Amino acid sequence: MESGSTNYRNMINFCRRWYDEKIPFNRVLGFRVDSFDGDAVCVKFDMRPELVGNHVHGFLHGGVISAVLDATGGLTASIGMLSKASADDLKQFEDRIARVGTIDLRVDYLRPGVGDHFTATSRTMRAGRKVTVTRMELHNDQDVLIAVGTGTYIVG
Amino acid sequence: MESGSTNYRNMINFCRRWYDEKIPFNRVLGFRVDSFDGDAVCVKFDMRPELVGNHVHGFLHGGVISAVLDATGGLTASIGMLSKASADDLKQFEDRIARVGTIDLRVDYLRPGVGDHFTATSRTMRAGRKVTVTRMELHNDQDVLIAVGTGTYIVG
Amino acid sequence: MESGSTNYRNMINFCRRWYDEKIPFNRVLGFRVDSFDGDAVCVKFDMRPELVGNHVHGFLHGGVISAVLDATGGLTASIGMLSKASADDLKQFEDRIARVGTIDLRVDYLRPGVGDHFTATSRTMRAGRKVTVTRMELHNDQDVLIAVGTGTYIVG
Amino acid sequence: MESGSTNYRNMINFCRRWYDEKIPFNRVLGFRVDSFDGDAVCVKFDMRPELVGNHVHGFLHGGVISAVLDATGGLTASIGMLSKASADDLKQFEDRIARVGTIDLRVDYLRPGVGDHFTATSRTMRAGRKVTVTRMELHNDQDVLIAVGTGTYIVG
Repeated sequence: MESGSTNYRNMINFCRRWYDEKIPFNRVLGFRVDSFDGDAVCVKFDMRPELVGNHVHGFLHGGVISAVLDATGGLTASIGMLSKASADDLKQFEDRIARVGTIDLRVDYLRPGVGDHFTATSRTMRAGRKVTVTRMELHNDQDVLIAVGTGTYIVG
Repeated sequence: MESGSTNYRNMINFCRRWYDEKIPFNRVLGFRVDSFDGDAVCVKFDMRPELVGNHVHGFLHGGVISAVLDATGGLTASIGMLSKASADDLKQFEDRIARVGTIDLRVDYLRPGVGDHFTATSRTMRAGRKVTVTRMELHNDQDVLIAVGTGTYIVG
Repeated sequence: MESGSTNYRNMINFCRRWYDEKIPFNRVLGFRVDSFDGDAVCVKFDMRPELVGNHVHGFLHGGVISAVLDATGGLTASIGMLSKASADDLKQFEDRIARVGTIDLRVDYLRPGVGDHFTATSRTMRAGRKVTVTRMELHNDQDVLIAVGTGTYIVG
Repeated sequence: MESGSTNYRNMINFCRRWYDEKIPFNRVLGFRVDSFDGDAVCVKFDMRPELVGNHVHGFLHGGVISAVLDATGGLTASIGMLSKASADDLKQFEDRIARVGTIDLRVDYLRPGVGDHFTATSRTMRAGRKVTVTRMELHNDQDVLIAVGTGTYIVG
């Protein structure tokens, strides 16, 4: 499917709604897709009291960080299947997205998760028939790099 | 500090309350410390609708899995500092626990997160002056192994 | 294929020769398959001056450790395909082994690599149609745990 | 110590000789330090028959890839201690380099290791008092990205 076509945009919007509205835990965390750009994805969320892991210092919980990196990488892997999808098989595409799964994830916590807003970005390192590998970064609103991660996803 | 002493038990209880009550995101997820046994820790939580990641199949969100493995490993690393703490410095121990942090985490998602209840366990692989490494496992109520992980924590 | 059959033993021997004799870098390092037991594999090698990484202390080089863990996990993933192979397609099995590849590897270096002999063991955590995940351990001749690792392999 | 000073250059040269000449396994693999640039390091090596892992296709062994990424990251962590060293304590610096050790390593094998020459680069993601985290990349002579990795090192 060509990346500028109407069907491609329809499917991108489908992915966005899937991610923002259909995944309950993403809603709990307040994750929202900000932009897609080729094989790169950007997800944003706001600091909230219930996302705190260290009440002494008010840092973001490590589990929130791993969750957003995993989810952003998984969305990138899903989007990556679009270029191989034919233009009129939205149903088939839905079935395939529902089967995308994380095989493994590494997260490196570089600096404390302080900030009002956070942005997770992801780009594809390997896009195979069976497996996609993505690298992710999390920045705060001061553009400080909080964490990086690498995810391996089953696709196809 | 000896593991059978009153002070040791006091500090273990302090760790438990810290984990269950003081970490906001742990409360959102419903994590609760079930038992401590030497350098091994067991944490339990229940499936709830908001913890779902795949609404088609009702599986646990990968971010919940990474969060519980990280938190259980971190608690294990905190407990490990007890054996080196002196008996009457609870305040100092609090300060040290507040500085324990995850350096990096790997999670392997082995099977879909299906079940009513889940149990995360952790054991210490390396207990150094600066760094502790733990391995974690997540089982469901049918004793199916859902995920394994390895965490590296800064301590001391 | 049944695990007790003649063909199964033939293919196991084929795997052993492949690993010991056909992989040049395994020969440089002196890796040799010691035993297969169901989905578990054991590989041994001896300390030699050229395998040293820290000349001050004489420890094994980290690259030797990651190499043996990766190779042992990859052999385990290869063996795992045997149970799905039909009894008379040795040629097809060769083709499939040649396509087994490491997707990613994590190694945790727990203690210095001191010893005269070392033993790497591996067991399968996930055996899928596309991907196999294995966990590996490295012990020295005093049965001290030197390192652990997790590998994700493409199969099929 | 200032990065332009004579002592700084002396210590950089000391690191280079340490890496190229004093680590036996680096010599077996033919690793040689190509350049230092601030907190970034570049290491080169040539394809040789004994470094092959897949004799059918002639690809580099995964263990060579993990070895070069680990060694390059470790050298980067060592260099990073220079900025904190005082100008006249070469002996103390030697002692500290001998204690730098890999805590854990992740390697992602993205494409087959084909090529005549390979270049590993590394940059520092986290430089703490106790722990340094680096990200590494391996390219072939066609500038194809073969593998990426992340290493966590104990320093100080």
